[in-house]
Amino acid sequence: MNTIFEIETRGQGPYEFTRDAARWVAGADVDEALLTLMIRHTSASLLIQENADPEVQTDLTNFFARLVPPTTDPAMSYLTHTYEGPDDMPAHIKASLLPISLQIPIIDGRMSLGTWQGIYLFEHRDRPHRRQVAALLR
Amino acid sequence: MNTIFEIETRGQGPYEFTRDAARWVAGADVDEALLTLMIRHTSASLLIQENADPEVQTDLTNFFARLVPPTTDPAMSYLTHTYEGPDDMPAHIKASLLPISLQIPIIDGRMSLGTWQGIYLFEHRDRPHRRQVAALLR
Amino acid sequence: MNTIFEIETRGQGPYEFTRDAARWVAGADVDEALLTLMIRHTSASLLIQENADPEVQTDLTNFFARLVPPTTDPAMSYLTHTYEGPDDMPAHIKASLLPISLQIPIIDGRMSLGTWQGIYLFEHRDRPHRRQVAALLR
Repeated sequence: MNTIFEIETRGQGPYEFTRDAARWVAGADVDEALLTLMIRHTSASLLIQENADPEVQTDLTNFFARLVPPTTDPAMSYLTHTYEGPDDMPAHIKASLLPISLQIPIIDGRMSLGTWQGIYLFEHRDRPHRRQVAALLR
Repeated sequence: MNTIFEIETRGQGPYEFTRDAARWVAGADVDEALLTLMIRHTSASLLIQENADPEVQTDLTNFFARLVPPTTDPAMSYLTHTYEGPDDMPAHIKASLLPISLQIPIIDGRMSLGTWQGIYLFEHRDRPHRRQVAALLR
Repeated sequence: MNTIFEIETRGQGPYEFTRDAARWVAGADVDEALLTLMIRHTSASLLIQENADPEVQTDLTNFFARLVPPTTDPAMSYLTHTYEGPDDMPAHIKASLLPISLQIPIIDGRMSLGTWQGIYLFEHRDRPHRRQVAALLR
């Protein structure tokens, strides 16, 4: 069983889609399975992180913005792939540092997530994008 | 087939559980399968790394402690999610940089690991924790 | 169904093997499945990244070389696992920051990759190596 989740983004940061994933898994009516999610892009990531305090998401976005600043920052002047804008190559780098795919065991028909774990698409580009996440349940 | 591994930690760093995983896989008596391990927390990670020289584990811990210092460090003063202590938000960041889940092919009834590969839970919090790793064999 | 891909490397950077993976998947003649790739080493990684512009790969290599410089760099003098050379411990660190394994949904008999996504082995050592990637299709 497979599907594509489409997620609209409006700038850098995490976008939660835990409920969409949970609803799709519930509809599959399986007892034990493996859920695989894979992002079909090279400038956005997937992530499982805390979904209780929104400050965690803000702090994560700010940490990665400082670890990999835009190419307008003199510290990044060695980067050459810049023609799509100052957030272009940093987005590819962040997409290498953060997960491309997630694997979640389905036990007793539900995702075996911890209490505070939410599923996020992490956007690394500034402009709005429509992102695709391939999902497979087996 | 599924289980939960419980791993007790006493401060930051990697804790190996390769033998526990290997024993469980051996008990399953399967020829070819996929082992998925997923950590059910947002402030600890999973990792496959060298298990020959303990200096590798110490160096890894020190690298990540410098890349993401505690929030008592002035360089991290922009972080806002700090009420659980100076190791709180850095733990979430490290848990985003290191793997949430591991997938290990089982071939001829055994994990297809390389000679020096060990399986670790990587703790990012200072205080002792009891961590859960969901395991699925399919 | 499983196999081992062998990939020869000549220094740090990404080595694409998308076509080898696609050819093997096509030969398996499955409709829906999960492809798992796992590297059997602790000083090289796997990565899905843009395969259109080679500048992306050069920039990625340079970013990681600056984030984790060789142990000849005074900034890395705290590292202790150095007896295999100045690229030894940095390779283990990069192998912790970049993916160990990749999971790619197979839909309608093909890898469900986005338009610009290529599959790479990312070498972190300077000297030539022959690397093994375990592949499982289920």
